[in-house]
Amino acid sequence: MEACRSFVLRFAFFALLVVPEVRAGVLDNRIDQFQLGESCNLSDNLLQEIKGYQSIVNKIISRIVDGEFAGQTWESLAELVDTFGARLAGSEQLEKAIDYVVEQMQHDQLENVHTENATVPHWVRGYESAQLVTPFKRNLPMLGLGTSVGTPRGGIIADVIAVESFQEFEKLAAEQVKGKIVVFVPKWESYGKTVMYRSKGASVASKKGAVATLIRSVTPFSIGSPHTGGQDYEDGVKKIPSACITVEDAEMILRKYRRGEQMTIHLEMEDRNLEPVVSRNTIGELLGTTYTNSSVVVVSGHLDSWDVGVGAMDDGGGALISWKAVTFLKAMGLRAKRTIRAILWTAEEEGYWGARAYKEAHKQNEKKEFNFFFESDMGTFEPKGLDFVGNKDAECIFREIVKLMSPLNATDFATPTDGGPDITNWTTRGFPGSSLLNKNEKYFWFHHSSGDSMAVEDPKNLDKCVALWAAAAYVVADLSISMPKDVVD
Amino acid sequence: MEACRSFVLRFAFFALLVVPEVRAGVLDNRIDQFQLGESCNLSDNLLQEIKGYQSIVNKIISRIVDGEFAGQTWESLAELVDTFGARLAGSEQLEKAIDYVVEQMQHDQLENVHTENATVPHWVRGYESAQLVTPFKRNLPMLGLGTSVGTPRGGIIADVIAVESFQEFEKLAAEQVKGKIVVFVPKWESYGKTVMYRSKGASVASKKGAVATLIRSVTPFSIGSPHTGGQDYEDGVKKIPSACITVEDAEMILRKYRRGEQMTIHLEMEDRNLEPVVSRNTIGELLGTTYTNSSVVVVSGHLDSWDVGVGAMDDGGGALISWKAVTFLKAMGLRAKRTIRAILWTAEEEGYWGARAYKEAHKQNEKKEFNFFFESDMGTFEPKGLDFVGNKDAECIFREIVKLMSPLNATDFATPTDGGPDITNWTTRGFPGSSLLNKNEKYFWFHHSSGDSMAVEDPKNLDKCVALWAAAAYVVADLSISMPKDVVD
Repeated sequence: MEACRSFVLRFAFFALLVVPEVRAGVLDNRIDQFQLGESCNLSDNLLQEIKGYQSIVNKIISRIVDGEFAGQTWESLAELVDTFGARLAGSEQLEKAIDYVVEQMQHDQLENVHTENATVPHWVRGYESAQLVTPFKRNLPMLGLGTSVGTPRGGIIADVIAVESFQEFEKLAAEQVKGKIVVFVPKWESYGKTVMYRSKGASVASKKGAVATLIRSVTPFSIGSPHTGGQDYEDGVKKIPSACITVEDAEMILRKYRRGEQMTIHLEMEDRNLEPVVSRNTIGELLGTTYTNSSVVVVSGHLDSWDVGVGAMDDGGGALISWKAVTFLKAMGLRAKRTIRAILWTAEEEGYWGARAYKEAHKQNEKKEFNFFFESDMGTFEPKGLDFVGNKDAECIFREIVKLMSPLNATDFATPTDGGPDITNWTTRGFPGSSLLNKNEKYFWFHHSSGDSMAVEDPKNLDKCVALWAAAAYVVADLSISMPKDVVD
Repeated sequence: MEACRSFVLRFAFFALLVVPEVRAGVLDNRIDQFQLGESCNLSDNLLQEIKGYQSIVNKIISRIVDGEFAGQTWESLAELVDTFGARLAGSEQLEKAIDYVVEQMQHDQLENVHTENATVPHWVRGYESAQLVTPFKRNLPMLGLGTSVGTPRGGIIADVIAVESFQEFEKLAAEQVKGKIVVFVPKWESYGKTVMYRSKGASVASKKGAVATLIRSVTPFSIGSPHTGGQDYEDGVKKIPSACITVEDAEMILRKYRRGEQMTIHLEMEDRNLEPVVSRNTIGELLGTTYTNSSVVVVSGHLDSWDVGVGAMDDGGGALISWKAVTFLKAMGLRAKRTIRAILWTAEEEGYWGARAYKEAHKQNEKKEFNFFFESDMGTFEPKGLDFVGNKDAECIFREIVKLMSPLNATDFATPTDGGPDITNWTTRGFPGSSLLNKNEKYFWFHHSSGDSMAVEDPKNLDKCVALWAAAAYVVADLSISMPKDVVD
């Protein structure tokens, strides 16, 4: 946290904080450059070698989707989230969940099961309430945003200004804004575009003297639930409380404001930023036959979540398919040449604190240690394929591997991508990586809300995701050659 | 309320209370008996007369959907619900909203604008909270059910029993249930079937000594929001508190219970049943050229709502299309032979108290007074057509009228139906009636929840609904003959 105080580091922190959002924006617009893929010129030997994995891929898929492992991933995820609930960085539940996963990984006979420490932020939600008091009393369901300060005791009562965009807000004079609660009601465009109001709204409003901000929840669709998420104070601005309200209430407030109605809101938030604490990344492996602590293939998701819902989707599903991919490969007796390492990151939601600590701790030998990074953090709905980031040689190899996933009807390929939020710690520097493509059109309906529950997860789809994950990781880990990479120091 | 104490009347009350649910069940299963329709034998004169209305229907549709009235219904609905919010029977907001509609109807130059009194229940939601306290603390978002009693001061703390069905509950001995909070977690089948757990759960559980019931919200889809609604205590049972929790939490509790986990819930509800109060049905007319207070064609929806969300869908949309259909016909100078009467019912949600009072007050001359009843209370999404209840002769006429709605692509016809919840006061006794068929597949997603907001309503669809409503009402009101009926005394 201290490091954030210098401008450069603060900016880097902010960039990291918003990368998943930027990434979501990238995903919205990217093009499958398949025509480029056609220019690949892999040797016949390598092509034949990859094609030779089809039977083993088929076996992995068949045993996970239709065999003895079917349904196990959903059951394990349900037991995890039903037992520990939400898993906010800094919370006792997260640490208990980590202990439980360590125990379960040992029970699953994963190898080198251990945790590695990471210092993480410790923001806590206290009592929260927002109420429209003028022109009539109406409770406004809301969720304070991660890192938001609370209100003074007794709360803030202030008049409301409502705007649809930063452009509209810019036109307001500071004297119009001073002392007001600013309600930002951006239209949904994409997560990458719309989330900027959540991330930056408080800082933007504070500069003109606002006393608090309320932001339309960042979702394309709502049934009256607020969505939380992170936000960031720019250096030097006065830290004002910031929360999301529902889409429905935000739009109502904007309509009333535009009709010229005077509105007053009473906002109370006892949210606090406490001292950072030590959490842990959770690791379990299937050791390679030829390489043990080098050329590792990482499969990963994050175990932490926001404190609403239970984080079954974000990112319980990603964590579980990474852990269970290794479990099932081991149970099938499929040991690749390289080690497959499941990493369940901690404190992703607050800015990848677990992955950043892991990167630092493994930096010295990272080029030798890491071969490839998988990450699933955009849902585990029905899988469609895999995306990719890395150099052209690696891409050509990976395209062929994705073709093996035809029994799952999951051969979509997309590039470029940053490969997932946690693994951007490596993929933005030249390591190759991939994240799960899946039918996640409704992902943001549930994201960071009380709707993030087991009801979102389907047992058969989870089986397909874990089968894809296990098969792809196995092939990458067992190839005769390492994945090519051009790492920038 | 007193009348409910005798068994027969209480049963009648309960039947009325659940009729919309029964009706929804009927709707799920009914068949468009089109082949029967083919057996109609209308005179050529009448057929030609009905067909002759096509140009006027086209004009009504064109001016409402594409002309000067386009968008007005949505704007008026938004202003109503933004200004008064939810409109629970017995509340000050409902009465203020009624005053406002009277004023607006006068402004729209409707005729005979007035209200008629109805005594209505006055249940109020107080402070409510449910928390899982063992094995870990977790807030359970919930909504007490209409007519539910509160808990003793300080709430109830009790162990949990969770079951999926009444059948499963029947197998439990009273000593297993005594002193427990019973959580009913029925699978969604249809509203008509699943709502029985909400309506009857408390009575069923109370008979075996339960201290409270929590019920899975009655919706096929959820993003973490609880849904409220009415419930009914059977005569003689101890009245225990009853509330709905979210689908997500209910399913979690059932899974945990089935794993053998012991759970304790702390439930606090300050909900109370107060003395009944006087509310009002709101009425505005377009007088007939030939008949003024006889052979009236009623277009209706209810103005009251539950106290969560703002009742834009249930039933603001139905109320607005009824009111605005008359407004627009008047503004177009289209006066039919018969009077078209918009009625905005009060206190539908608690059991049609407004419609029941209206029926009693108009009973003496009802056969002469009423020609036909329209009601919209199942959404105002994109219209598909009209359903019908009444005798065969009326059905044959109405089928021809529905065919006129082809410019709206809304010529679906279905029968039998009870014609809508409020108008069952007449249609179950032989008066002909119709309710709006619309693309309401997602209706129960929002129903009785904080998701019932303007975000559900689309301006263009509302225009189409009001155009259909105005056109159909005009033709029925202007026909050379009254709609045939076989009224049971």
